[in-house]
Amino acid sequence: MLKKKLKSVSLNQIQIEDKFWKEYMELVRNHVIPYQWEALNDRIENAEPSYCIQNFRVAAKQQEGIFQGMVFQDSDVYKWLEAVAYSLMWCPDEKLEQTADETIELIAAAQQPDGYLDTYYIINGLEKRFTNLMDHHELYCLGHMIEAAVAYYKATGKDRFLQTAIAYANCVSENLGTEPGKIPGYPGHEVAEMALVALYGITKDERHLKLAKYFVDQRGQAPLFFDEECKKNQNTCYWDDTYMKKQYYQAGKPVREQDKAEGHAVRAVYLYSGMADVASETEDEKLFEACEKLWDNIVKKQMYVTGAIGSTQHGEAFTFDYDLPNDTIYAETCAAIGLIFFARRMFEITKNGKYMDIAERALYNGVISGMSLDGKKFFYVNPLEVNPEASLKDYNKMHVKPERQKWFGCACCPPNVARLLSSIGGYAFECDDNSLYMNLFIGGVIELLLGGEKNTIRVETNYPWDGRVAVTVENGAPCEFTYAVRLPEWCENYTLTVNGEKAEYMAENGYALLKRNWNNGDRIDLCMEMPVTVVEANPHVREDIGKVAVMRGPLVYCLEEEDNGAQLQEIYLDEKLQFAEQYEEDLLKGVVTLKAEGKRVSGKGWNTDTLYRAYSGKQYQEQTLKFIPYYAWANRGIGEMEVWVRI
Amino acid sequence: MLKKKLKSVSLNQIQIEDKFWKEYMELVRNHVIPYQWEALNDRIENAEPSYCIQNFRVAAKQQEGIFQGMVFQDSDVYKWLEAVAYSLMWCPDEKLEQTADETIELIAAAQQPDGYLDTYYIINGLEKRFTNLMDHHELYCLGHMIEAAVAYYKATGKDRFLQTAIAYANCVSENLGTEPGKIPGYPGHEVAEMALVALYGITKDERHLKLAKYFVDQRGQAPLFFDEECKKNQNTCYWDDTYMKKQYYQAGKPVREQDKAEGHAVRAVYLYSGMADVASETEDEKLFEACEKLWDNIVKKQMYVTGAIGSTQHGEAFTFDYDLPNDTIYAETCAAIGLIFFARRMFEITKNGKYMDIAERALYNGVISGMSLDGKKFFYVNPLEVNPEASLKDYNKMHVKPERQKWFGCACCPPNVARLLSSIGGYAFECDDNSLYMNLFIGGVIELLLGGEKNTIRVETNYPWDGRVAVTVENGAPCEFTYAVRLPEWCENYTLTVNGEKAEYMAENGYALLKRNWNNGDRIDLCMEMPVTVVEANPHVREDIGKVAVMRGPLVYCLEEEDNGAQLQEIYLDEKLQFAEQYEEDLLKGVVTLKAEGKRVSGKGWNTDTLYRAYSGKQYQEQTLKFIPYYAWANRGIGEMEVWVRI
Repeated sequence: MLKKKLKSVSLNQIQIEDKFWKEYMELVRNHVIPYQWEALNDRIENAEPSYCIQNFRVAAKQQEGIFQGMVFQDSDVYKWLEAVAYSLMWCPDEKLEQTADETIELIAAAQQPDGYLDTYYIINGLEKRFTNLMDHHELYCLGHMIEAAVAYYKATGKDRFLQTAIAYANCVSENLGTEPGKIPGYPGHEVAEMALVALYGITKDERHLKLAKYFVDQRGQAPLFFDEECKKNQNTCYWDDTYMKKQYYQAGKPVREQDKAEGHAVRAVYLYSGMADVASETEDEKLFEACEKLWDNIVKKQMYVTGAIGSTQHGEAFTFDYDLPNDTIYAETCAAIGLIFFARRMFEITKNGKYMDIAERALYNGVISGMSLDGKKFFYVNPLEVNPEASLKDYNKMHVKPERQKWFGCACCPPNVARLLSSIGGYAFECDDNSLYMNLFIGGVIELLLGGEKNTIRVETNYPWDGRVAVTVENGAPCEFTYAVRLPEWCENYTLTVNGEKAEYMAENGYALLKRNWNNGDRIDLCMEMPVTVVEANPHVREDIGKVAVMRGPLVYCLEEEDNGAQLQEIYLDEKLQFAEQYEEDLLKGVVTLKAEGKRVSGKGWNTDTLYRAYSGKQYQEQTLKFIPYYAWANRGIGEMEVWVRI
Repeated sequence: MLKKKLKSVSLNQIQIEDKFWKEYMELVRNHVIPYQWEALNDRIENAEPSYCIQNFRVAAKQQEGIFQGMVFQDSDVYKWLEAVAYSLMWCPDEKLEQTADETIELIAAAQQPDGYLDTYYIINGLEKRFTNLMDHHELYCLGHMIEAAVAYYKATGKDRFLQTAIAYANCVSENLGTEPGKIPGYPGHEVAEMALVALYGITKDERHLKLAKYFVDQRGQAPLFFDEECKKNQNTCYWDDTYMKKQYYQAGKPVREQDKAEGHAVRAVYLYSGMADVASETEDEKLFEACEKLWDNIVKKQMYVTGAIGSTQHGEAFTFDYDLPNDTIYAETCAAIGLIFFARRMFEITKNGKYMDIAERALYNGVISGMSLDGKKFFYVNPLEVNPEASLKDYNKMHVKPERQKWFGCACCPPNVARLLSSIGGYAFECDDNSLYMNLFIGGVIELLLGGEKNTIRVETNYPWDGRVAVTVENGAPCEFTYAVRLPEWCENYTLTVNGEKAEYMAENGYALLKRNWNNGDRIDLCMEMPVTVVEANPHVREDIGKVAVMRGPLVYCLEEEDNGAQLQEIYLDEKLQFAEQYEEDLLKGVVTLKAEGKRVSGKGWNTDTLYRAYSGKQYQEQTLKFIPYYAWANRGIGEMEVWVRI
């Protein structure tokens, strides 16, 4: 049975009340969404124009002009609308909703009679549409349109956008496929697969599931469609000259035969998410097995300790097993987000906490590192080691910025962060009719039917700084349901009580299943010990040999030059591994910092005239090291940073 | 006094009789020179044609056709002729000389009435000549032509080629300069500077020295010529978008203001060599100071332990102080050769052995690593660490080949190695009327006038495997001269005897100056202790922290997978640092190998399913490590290699 057992609690049933996350959500609502709206409308001074809204106006013949921006520029509007939809669910805002409605009207106005909707081809000539599925992102835009439309429909109940998306989906369905007269193509940049399954969840229109399944099944079948398309339309494929070839697009062989994550990392995890969705809906065991293999390959061979993925800038791609360089890394924020999408689907199918362990790791480290603490600047690339001089002068590291940037020409990461953070509640809590899964430890109030009764669940916690989580149940009448508490992989010792008494529960797949008759006022207390843990990487990871990473709870820590001086490579952590933890209210919006004994390679005897000398044994001077949470790095100016510390 | 105090002993006065070097010279004579001749004539199967000779035929109107190959293709012929010239000096070969003469006739036939000689423009249109000095290598070809012509003149006494080169030099002189009506340009790729000074050494024609000085003086003066040239001729400069800008060509500021080695490494050291030549000939203290600063910057901040230079593939360039990555390195063979050129000039001006220390380091490591032991394959890039899988799949490391290649489209390195190796005797021995400097320890017989008498100096040694060098003097009558023995930087303890008795000598600038009346049969014995030494890098070198390199005598050693297994990053050298030395006759044409106690990170508890785990202290298993000389790596198939070993 691959049918999903759980679904996210709807965002309008959750009120997040959590010091850590609410602030992020408010940053998105108050800064990111309005800022992006200005960007989409080319009203940001000194920034490259987006042309997004303008392209739609031109396509809708409301304005004269040419298409400008990237070929996938439309998708930025869709991602913005998706973030808006989530935000409206937990914080209604008439004016914002009106702006969204107007934007949706504009989008609809650009739609062609047969449902087609991609401003690049509408403006540049429809006769050319569907001639470069490999690189021209028409189906990527379709995917993001559907995801936004589904979200907006759920948020507002309005179906204008949904109908627009359905019309485009149906147009694609008419034109693509293996049937005679159709183009046997599929997306160059995946996302439509999972989007179509989500659409199917609402429409129950078999065409939508069929199209998703077709995209998955057809991908990489011989003869390779992208090869044929190139020949037919005289397109050229940049990646044919690389070792990746069509695996850059995960399209070098049928997806069921793929067992290593390869190619562009964001595309890859978006595809795998879609594969999981299709496998679930169609009960396709073989396809699900491929998902499991790909998952295993990522998390056991190709994932950074921060949950980041994508080892190289070249193709923003996966490379090979155990190749995890820290300073030439790509680790795109969007890729870590995509890994969370994949994790969530695998969890919903299996109810296995191991997937949420990875989702939590990526979320608290590789994703939120992507946004500055003031919500105004963003990392595309999330390195585990930075030397600012190298970022300026080493071509291999120029993509690794030592400070977050205001906006990007290719603005995929900021809106992706926005849509994730404004829907974070849905990742934290999943449910079925008789159980509620607490996947992430986020404070808030959830109202939902469980065991046939309306329950109000109140979660209080100071996570990730503290491992205590209190849950209280309020209901009108006692009812039986399962409250499933995730026992994270990082946690070795915990206590779990109900109403102050040791709880009886079944431990299954990383969850404590508290199944009982719940009375009004019942209280669950989870108390996870949260000592500092020090981890090492598999010795096959060349870059991490002789080094360790410091963690506490779900958080990966790092050293910054600001606290520890420059030349971080000279620093060694002492084997004693004794850490002094301190919550510093005024530092980085409040973080627990860690201090430990360490040492630094002695500069004694070295001067600037000596590059090499006879080795005379190891010489160090003592130094107290100060670690801060990785996600908060680069919020105090430019300096060196490293996660993996020598020991 | 900057005038050069010493000059190389002429190659026809030296017969190298040395197990180590004679074999290389014979490889060049018997394999490289004939093979390259076939390549120049496009007769190598399955290799990209060179078009070199064909271009000259077309330019000489002996054949119809277009220009093909790189814009600097002519220089390959010149480098080949230079190697031939050196080879003829120590091994006359009528047939080879005839082939060379015919080639020289062909070159002369392509020369234009005003002396101009670059087949690219002769074929493509002379009206375009001198319009892209920045990138089109006309002056680079001039430089290599002069160097070859000078060598050929010295080897054969024939001046046909010399006159051809003089005519082209004079043509350039007529067209380039700051005088009204001339183009105020200079070479985009340097080499003509040092070549012109060499030419001046023969012609004593002031125009040649003046042109060299002009090239040096004008370089980087404001307004930057290359900027002006780009504007005027609508050329574009690729490097303007990089942090190097015109410093890629060492042309961003006047050379006397440059104090850091920057830009393309080969161009840089070729320029610095020319600067030293001009400083010497013109007694230009300021210019010489710039040479010293640039030298210091290279050897104290930017040089690999192998004497290699050029930290990045991007621009084949220097990067910044202490940036010495081992696995994304460039370290072009030609750059190490250029560093030797620079060193030799600085030595000839100063008689300071520190320059020859670096020359020796580069020669025995970073240069000869460039050629396979059978003389048939070549490295362009000489890494200090290689993981073959990364060379295939990591874009940042694809230029780092785990095996030498047969030939290159841009074939600069093989002929450069050829011309260096076939003239190695000239680097080993330098002289003035009353002294002979033994810079390198190479066995052979030198016949030359010293102190007015004809002397035959016989050097016998098994260097670099053994630190004993025996020198015997034969002469018809006793005569006074100084025999200067270089005391290398790597050598801490040595004995020096004359006729079995402790020698009396003045130690100066890294030389033992044995000044005395030499009688027939006198014998010098230098006995250098040659223990294994272990060196560490300045802790500012991030890539080498916690690591050491193993050396013995001038040789840097390395670990290969073949001897030590894969995953070399797991290996640590034991602190005991006890090495067992063994000369292995049958290994790699005979090398001294080193064995030492070491250890490998224990694989215990690790499996392929675990990427990260709680750190549980350092765990190793013992392993005996076997080191081979670095230059000999990659002669036994493809595998991992590393120079810097963890300790």
